[in-house]
Amino acid sequence: MIKIVILGAGNLALHLFKAFNKATNTEVIQVYNRSESSLQIFKNKTDTTTNFTQLKKADVYLVCVKDDAIENIIKKLAKTEAIVAHTSGSVALSTSATRNAVFYPLQTFSKQTEVNFKEIPICLETSEEKDFSILEKLAKNISEKVFPISSAQRKKLHLAAVFASNFSNYMYAIAEDICNKNEVPFEVLNALIQETAKKATLNSPKTVQTGPAKRNDQATIKQHLAQLNNADYKEIYKLLTQSIIDQHGKKL
Amino acid sequence: MIKIVILGAGNLALHLFKAFNKATNTEVIQVYNRSESSLQIFKNKTDTTTNFTQLKKADVYLVCVKDDAIENIIKKLAKTEAIVAHTSGSVALSTSATRNAVFYPLQTFSKQTEVNFKEIPICLETSEEKDFSILEKLAKNISEKVFPISSAQRKKLHLAAVFASNFSNYMYAIAEDICNKNEVPFEVLNALIQETAKKATLNSPKTVQTGPAKRNDQATIKQHLAQLNNADYKEIYKLLTQSIIDQHGKKL
Repeated sequence: MIKIVILGAGNLALHLFKAFNKATNTEVIQVYNRSESSLQIFKNKTDTTTNFTQLKKADVYLVCVKDDAIENIIKKLAKTEAIVAHTSGSVALSTSATRNAVFYPLQTFSKQTEVNFKEIPICLETSEEKDFSILEKLAKNISEKVFPISSAQRKKLHLAAVFASNFSNYMYAIAEDICNKNEVPFEVLNALIQETAKKATLNSPKTVQTGPAKRNDQATIKQHLAQLNNADYKEIYKLLTQSIIDQHGKKL
Repeated sequence: MIKIVILGAGNLALHLFKAFNKATNTEVIQVYNRSESSLQIFKNKTDTTTNFTQLKKADVYLVCVKDDAIENIIKKLAKTEAIVAHTSGSVALSTSATRNAVFYPLQTFSKQTEVNFKEIPICLETSEEKDFSILEKLAKNISEKVFPISSAQRKKLHLAAVFASNFSNYMYAIAEDICNKNEVPFEVLNALIQETAKKATLNSPKTVQTGPAKRNDQATIKQHLAQLNNADYKEIYKLLTQSIIDQHGKKL
């Protein structure tokens, strides 16, 4: 049984708490948070505290606080013999504890939606080589997708995720705006959006690229540009189209 | 029973043939194609022909050929009393037949993957008002999502689909490229991509926008730009980030 103390009481803390509680080989023995109010949801389910000096002895301290508060918390744990793992995608492996680690589930979490952790990739890194297998055991208890990812790789992954998630969502938002302005229900595009995401993850997105830019279909491209009144959207259409043409014009 | 003749033998023709054959109120009585070889797959399942003069009498002629061949086929059907519907997203309603129509399933079709037509939106338009209900009946036989969409709206929808599908896929492709160059398995991003697509279609994508641009987090944006060596990707990152900042800086 791996004993865990969770530090923080936000969305990620809550989802991890639920997942570890369901799993057989892990137990969350305590949740710490600076303020009392957010701890309410954990009461009666495990021990809670707002007092750092009353932290229980655990195998792993999981730091689930905001990026800019992580290092302060780890410093307070500098003397523990346990593993101290933060859960952020954009903060490097700390050097402040004795056994530093990263336990980063790559997904967006909101309070409303239930999360199936099995499908969520967990990216691991440890300062001590022998600790990797412990964290791996921990991660595999809740997820089927566990990856060793270094701090340098995690930085790149975070950048890649901006394209894969934030920017793809912005593409949907532009499509929605075009639909709204022309009284077309955005719902018409739902199946296409889902299928595109599915296709890209089953294959390599580069190999399944379609559309006028891929075909270098200048007649359609011109027609589309003429229809775009929004200056931003026009610029974006032009730039992405040219980039796709350049990329697919070259030999793979 | 609505009797259908399908003209064309490509992916869409095949998927529609299968869907109509499964449905109870429709029957594909013939498939026409200019060349014999592509008809092979339909043999023994329905009548096939390569001879236009031997077309059977039907209620609906469904034109499933390439965009630039559509008008020629419809002209050959100018004298029929049946409905002549093409299936393209980017070709306007014809005026060549007596009863012109559009029956446009908005999805990408490939031969390998089986298609669940129930979830695929079908966009309908007819020159004769009374024909709409016939096409609607036809569409509802295979899909739960049927929408009246005019030619003008369809043009905008096609443009919106470039953003929602082609450009979002390009965002995935850039993410994949960044992963590959840093020896991070692209698979790590799968769950995030699926979840982003799901979230956007359950909500309005504009309201679920996240990321450094949305937060106007200049420190992270600078860090990301410094990491991008590819000039195209850098330009794209800058333009999309600025556009998101501009849009979300304004009051909704």
